[in-house]
Amino acid sequence: MTQIYNFSAGPAVLPKEVLQQAAAEMLDWHGSGMSVMEMSHRGAEFMSILETALADLRELLAVPDNYKILFMQGGALAENAIIPMNLVGRKPQPATIDFVHTGSWTAKSINEAKKYANVRIAAAAPDGRFHAVPKRAGWNLHRDAAYLHVCTNETIDGVEYHFNPDAGDVPIVADMSSHILSRVIDVAKYGVIFAGAQKNIGPAGLTIVIVREDLLGHALPCCPSAFDWKIVAEHGSMYNTPPTYAIYIAGLVFQWLKRQGGVAAMEQRNIAKASLLYDYLDASAFYRNEIAKDSRSRMNVPFFLRDESLNEAFLVGAKAHGLLQLKGHKSVGGMRASLYNAMPIEGVQALVDYLKEFEQKYG
Amino acid sequence: MTQIYNFSAGPAVLPKEVLQQAAAEMLDWHGSGMSVMEMSHRGAEFMSILETALADLRELLAVPDNYKILFMQGGALAENAIIPMNLVGRKPQPATIDFVHTGSWTAKSINEAKKYANVRIAAAAPDGRFHAVPKRAGWNLHRDAAYLHVCTNETIDGVEYHFNPDAGDVPIVADMSSHILSRVIDVAKYGVIFAGAQKNIGPAGLTIVIVREDLLGHALPCCPSAFDWKIVAEHGSMYNTPPTYAIYIAGLVFQWLKRQGGVAAMEQRNIAKASLLYDYLDASAFYRNEIAKDSRSRMNVPFFLRDESLNEAFLVGAKAHGLLQLKGHKSVGGMRASLYNAMPIEGVQALVDYLKEFEQKYG
Repeated sequence: MTQIYNFSAGPAVLPKEVLQQAAAEMLDWHGSGMSVMEMSHRGAEFMSILETALADLRELLAVPDNYKILFMQGGALAENAIIPMNLVGRKPQPATIDFVHTGSWTAKSINEAKKYANVRIAAAAPDGRFHAVPKRAGWNLHRDAAYLHVCTNETIDGVEYHFNPDAGDVPIVADMSSHILSRVIDVAKYGVIFAGAQKNIGPAGLTIVIVREDLLGHALPCCPSAFDWKIVAEHGSMYNTPPTYAIYIAGLVFQWLKRQGGVAAMEQRNIAKASLLYDYLDASAFYRNEIAKDSRSRMNVPFFLRDESLNEAFLVGAKAHGLLQLKGHKSVGGMRASLYNAMPIEGVQALVDYLKEFEQKYG
Repeated sequence: MTQIYNFSAGPAVLPKEVLQQAAAEMLDWHGSGMSVMEMSHRGAEFMSILETALADLRELLAVPDNYKILFMQGGALAENAIIPMNLVGRKPQPATIDFVHTGSWTAKSINEAKKYANVRIAAAAPDGRFHAVPKRAGWNLHRDAAYLHVCTNETIDGVEYHFNPDAGDVPIVADMSSHILSRVIDVAKYGVIFAGAQKNIGPAGLTIVIVREDLLGHALPCCPSAFDWKIVAEHGSMYNTPPTYAIYIAGLVFQWLKRQGGVAAMEQRNIAKASLLYDYLDASAFYRNEIAKDSRSRMNVPFFLRDESLNEAFLVGAKAHGLLQLKGHKSVGGMRASLYNAMPIEGVQALVDYLKEFEQKYG
């Protein structure tokens, strides 16, 4: 079989070692005679898997003691509702939420938040296109906001924060779905960090929420118990049956990350991978990336062929070279290469080699 | 390794053939070069997995054309809130929901429904213990109820409906989490059928909802978009990223069920398995099951040793015989054997052999 490199934006590539271990343990986890899928979530075997995964994630992200880590369900789209249902109750109703609008994922979050609060756009790209994170100096924040919502990596638009947002005493809620664990972050700068697992962690169906303890306990009466962070925290993410197999795979990914040297080492590799691709795109007149250099995502690189009539030929050739899932999101068009942790630099080099070959043929 | 039989109430035993296939395909699904976990949910490969799973489930349960099948997240506990959020809007607010109260799972559903509507208990076991399904003739139903909620198999209490509930024009919502696909049902008798997958279908993290089309489109304003059945249906269960790997495993289980002869054949085996165990318990003075004969669950069999001081010795001996996860739920005590579809009759025979051996030793 040709060597495959999978550039999907999510669900996305996983480390081969993790998949090999999962396959080997599928019918019998550690001599238990059971697959992880078959274990009672309250049994000693699964509890050890859950606790190890929680401890490893806490270590990898250096999560302070006054933060809870919750394993939930529903992805970032469900969390877009769950967040206001848990946080707007801290303020007189109707409360207000500030947003920095950076692209497609912020747009979805804004639309959902409007069900539960008034929404203010504290900052947005002026031309309505999402090619840069608005400069901090221009953010029009309000001290009475229930919270400030940011999406620190826009998967579709390819825009990433390369600075720590701050909002004074107003808690910051950050959607880190597509770059969590790809770079060192200071968790203490945030009130809530959330992420769907299926981009940079593991299988779809697991949502990670990291929440400062003083923000628990304010759920609206309409918030389902299964999504009330305080209840989830009090039950150690076991109020409802958690997505046990997804947690197991995420735990294997966390162990793999530790073997790779942790998040700081991973960040250096991600810088090298992203630079390799952006440098080639910038030097070429055949391709282009439209994102401001200070806001370019290391994880998701949208790019365009100057001659878009060649798009189909480009994708067909890429697939023949084992370079999969490079088609851009339908709302943006063109191409997109996602370079998550599990993408080795050899995959990025193979992509650059193909970009060059295609340019030489058609340029 | 000793032959293991896993009697967990959920997550629970899966067919060995399914686990073997999942292990074999873990790194490369059908020559795609990808694990199912790594596939974009919108790619051709996963779409074929999803569509096959939906079609197979529709065939297995003979779901009529005017019902949608939705793949969701959050389990039955989340669905306990999602259901009223989707259905009470059909009536003037505050609406009323009727419940037939049969045990622990109905109790959870009742508590959650109270957030969104007035709750009326249409029927309940008179002595406050849940040893029988209340007879239909005694149900005090209300014609103006938004719906009637029933739990057709109580996993914890071991009580199962062996008749079709009916409520005239009021739609019936049935929690079938722990016996879906174990027996033939007439879907047309229900407005909504829901089930967490982790008991009789597949991995935790997938929730199945089967809903009559005329019940869509009534979500309350506070209902998160990701849990609005109409939105989920319109997007073919892809409004948010679905739990792709759990759907794949469920699909393998559906194919296994078809190879076994479908639900009718499975029902005959489940009758044989349950009879084997109940007949032994009834003939013994050493053990007892407290459920009325016409309401006994074929899936979940709680039983007690007359001398409960032997419980620990019983469980230790069971484990040594490869009979796992027999401890009863903490709210009921004693023992519980769950006999889902994937439990072969050999497992039930091994349990009965052990019951006999233990009785001979200590009786």
